[in-house]
Amino acid sequence: MIILGIDPGIAIVGYGIVHYDGHKFTPIEYGAITTPAGQKLTDRLRDIYESVCTLIEKHKPDAFSIEELFFNTNVKTAISVAHGRGVCILAATVLNIPVFEYTPLQIKQAVAGYGRAQKGQVQRMVTQMLGLSAVPKPDDVADALAIAMCHGYSAQYHNRINQEGI
Amino acid sequence: MIILGIDPGIAIVGYGIVHYDGHKFTPIEYGAITTPAGQKLTDRLRDIYESVCTLIEKHKPDAFSIEELFFNTNVKTAISVAHGRGVCILAATVLNIPVFEYTPLQIKQAVAGYGRAQKGQVQRMVTQMLGLSAVPKPDDVADALAIAMCHGYSAQYHNRINQEGI
Repeated sequence: MIILGIDPGIAIVGYGIVHYDGHKFTPIEYGAITTPAGQKLTDRLRDIYESVCTLIEKHKPDAFSIEELFFNTNVKTAISVAHGRGVCILAATVLNIPVFEYTPLQIKQAVAGYGRAQKGQVQRMVTQMLGLSAVPKPDDVADALAIAMCHGYSAQYHNRINQEGI
Repeated sequence: MIILGIDPGIAIVGYGIVHYDGHKFTPIEYGAITTPAGQKLTDRLRDIYESVCTLIEKHKPDAFSIEELFFNTNVKTAISVAHGRGVCILAATVLNIPVFEYTPLQIKQAVAGYGRAQKGQVQRMVTQMLGLSAVPKPDDVADALAIAMCHGYSAQYHNRINQEGI
């Protein structure tokens, strides 16, 4: 299964594409879509949308995994990130990729085994489990890989339950 | 000049398309794009995006006018509306329509002549100036028409300044 994980944003959108065989994750491509601070909102949204579409068309993921937004953050920031998140989800939907949302707690729980794990712990686990030589930077990239891996674990869990007929 | 005004949202997106000749507004089409509460976010965003694209392709507006989001509202609502607003702006951008943003204060000022005008006053002005027999419902539709008209006035003002060479 190929999973595209997205850490949504407007200035930086982290992405991580991984393959998961039910036991092991293999990194395929990861990085960040960035838009300059001075760029107009219209151009930023178009660039993000088109970049996500290009990633999907290139890697044909089976699933699109994205972080849910915090509701306890700064409203101005939340609105800005939500604009970007909306066009990322639209890209997956228009290209018929199933979309899954996970909370930060679920992502930490899945990757580090502990919902209140520190950011550094999650990043080390991502680096180790993907066999990378260093923590991917910026943080948004490591986060996107964690989001993709979270779906791998969750999908496996769902499959297992289904196989057992529960 | 044909202007498409959008009152952004996720459950209800008001739209109003008007023609403005520099003196008089004429309504072309107005209404609401609605998505049911139980519908998935993915489907809602796709439906909104596709509906806005269809409106643009049908009426070929010269300008796309959209309300800025309040930052003093409920964060959960703001995030939800911002997802919808993002895909509306994307639709205009992808179809090469220039996008203009106005604050609620600017819209009230333009349409009712007073930035702190009541909602009812703005709605009555919209109804009267467009020669409609009743206030368009729901409120999102009247708001969208006001947003479109706000751009008409602003564009006229800019043109006037340019013509005078100031």
